[in-house]
Amino acid sequence: MRIAIDAMGGDHAPDEIVAGVLEAVPQLDKDDEVVLVGPQELVESKLVELKYKKGRVSVVDAPDVVAMDDAPIESLRKKPKSSIAVMAKLAKRGQADAVISAGNTGACVAAFQMRMRNLPGVNRPGIAVVFPMSAGPVTICDVGANVACKPINLYQYGLMSTVYSQHILGIANPRVGLMSIGQEDAKGNEVVKRTRELLRSDDRLNFVGNIEGRDIFRGVCDVVVCEGFVGNVILKLTEGAVDGLFRAIKQELMQEKARLALKFKPIIMRVYQKHDYNEYGGAPLLGINGTALICHGSSKSRTIRNAIFASKKYYTQRINEKITDCLSEAHVRTSDA
Amino acid sequence: MRIAIDAMGGDHAPDEIVAGVLEAVPQLDKDDEVVLVGPQELVESKLVELKYKKGRVSVVDAPDVVAMDDAPIESLRKKPKSSIAVMAKLAKRGQADAVISAGNTGACVAAFQMRMRNLPGVNRPGIAVVFPMSAGPVTICDVGANVACKPINLYQYGLMSTVYSQHILGIANPRVGLMSIGQEDAKGNEVVKRTRELLRSDDRLNFVGNIEGRDIFRGVCDVVVCEGFVGNVILKLTEGAVDGLFRAIKQELMQEKARLALKFKPIIMRVYQKHDYNEYGGAPLLGINGTALICHGSSKSRTIRNAIFASKKYYTQRINEKITDCLSEAHVRTSDA
Repeated sequence: MRIAIDAMGGDHAPDEIVAGVLEAVPQLDKDDEVVLVGPQELVESKLVELKYKKGRVSVVDAPDVVAMDDAPIESLRKKPKSSIAVMAKLAKRGQADAVISAGNTGACVAAFQMRMRNLPGVNRPGIAVVFPMSAGPVTICDVGANVACKPINLYQYGLMSTVYSQHILGIANPRVGLMSIGQEDAKGNEVVKRTRELLRSDDRLNFVGNIEGRDIFRGVCDVVVCEGFVGNVILKLTEGAVDGLFRAIKQELMQEKARLALKFKPIIMRVYQKHDYNEYGGAPLLGINGTALICHGSSKSRTIRNAIFASKKYYTQRINEKITDCLSEAHVRTSDA
Repeated sequence: MRIAIDAMGGDHAPDEIVAGVLEAVPQLDKDDEVVLVGPQELVESKLVELKYKKGRVSVVDAPDVVAMDDAPIESLRKKPKSSIAVMAKLAKRGQADAVISAGNTGACVAAFQMRMRNLPGVNRPGIAVVFPMSAGPVTICDVGANVACKPINLYQYGLMSTVYSQHILGIANPRVGLMSIGQEDAKGNEVVKRTRELLRSDDRLNFVGNIEGRDIFRGVCDVVVCEGFVGNVILKLTEGAVDGLFRAIKQELMQEKARLALKFKPIIMRVYQKHDYNEYGGAPLLGINGTALICHGSSKSRTIRNAIFASKKYYTQRINEKITDCLSEAHVRTSDA
């Protein structure tokens, strides 16, 4: 398979991106190729710097760069030769089986949707992020592709995430929870109330009903369905809360004896590692007609390496075929809701 | 002043509620009174149990009890003599200067709005919760009173929370952030984009623009404006993340030597105490024509005691007058947006 990677995406591009690719390549199959998409000279100089000898990594030129804070649609119009736009075109033409970027999420979603189109029956794609929890991985969809969801979108996120959770995470019968503000049916906004009916009426889903913010950490479900605005807040808030708490603990430890502080370091590190989302590499854009992974803006080489493996698994497990099959049997279709 | 408290509200009612009242009373002014609202016999028996001698605490009978998971509006219709409904009536008739409940939030908001009405110029009240952070307290409004906000509601939450933050928390010029999914103007949903214009155009506000979930923990603002659905998810998610992390650390510690685990305990306790929202007692329903505090469902006596002091401060600082003044000078009024 041929995997295209945005060499200019994220806070540590291009160095960490190129490094991640070189870490992954030795572990790929013999007929796998990786294409680094970015300003040709710059990317090639990085390959030379890292002493890469010609082989399965090639460079496709994309002189424009979309900044992390560029307006998505506008940046694609103004920068048609950006790495994100060029990657989307490669996927469209069948010159890439998977695309991976740690760059501007909005621009990725817009470019991938525009060029690659949706899978049959999918109304709007959604980004699915996996939270590693002590009780097992929890998939949250959507975390930012779609800020104004209709019930049909959320229902499809439930179906697609179930397929993903089954075939990528190995959870036989994933429990699906709908993010709301109380467990009772009367709680939530209108979209949530109508979504609940759709999720509940599909026998193939293991729907556990409404969940609340705190439930994500309590092992009550394997899939969380929410609109992109809420999911994005959840994602960044969790990151902030965990960082903040670790910082607060560190501050308190600094006031202790150095020897004691040192003893706690490995404990904190173990907790951190067990909840490290970098393990999963990137978040798939579920519902797109192709394999597209979006990585955290702060991705370092390890995340990129893992994202490459994740894209390979997504592709070889034929997740998109399974999603298409699943949606074709849905009792509510795009046109109905 | 006369403070009415829902004796039946919350997971630990009535025991912890009555205990909290008795803890607070000795520290109140001589002419302050507390009214416990709930099933007369039951509440009186609790007072006897706790060896309370007749004085400034009285009981008003409310034989019905609204359960935590009752549908708000329906429960008020079916249980007109619930403690929540009776408290709201006391406030309406001027027989209570403040109402406090750790019960069903939706039922409280509905009952208080119906009986007490809104302050002049207020479109919809919002619940303001204070997060204690190392960098200082952060007020988040709304966390669940209004799940489908219009821009005017969010704008007013910014104004009302600014007044609250100034006069209750002592922050001279509170920085106001608007919860969104990216700092750039182009990010967010339609309501957020329109709200930003309203907040930005009011010179009296110290508006810092869009913030993201992680920013709550980074000390970038003193007030966070968001719609009730998102705010409620934020509130419960933070609680869940912090609990989950402390649990994970505990689990790791259990695998260490007992002596080491013991040494770590006070450090964790110090971190916990610095972030303990029980310190603030309850969350005011900003915009209601009266003083109404809503406490966490898991409130114990200490929270109730602190909520009583908080209601007194809110009342004596004349927060509602200041809110009314502030809103009367707003450039956009209820009727305009």
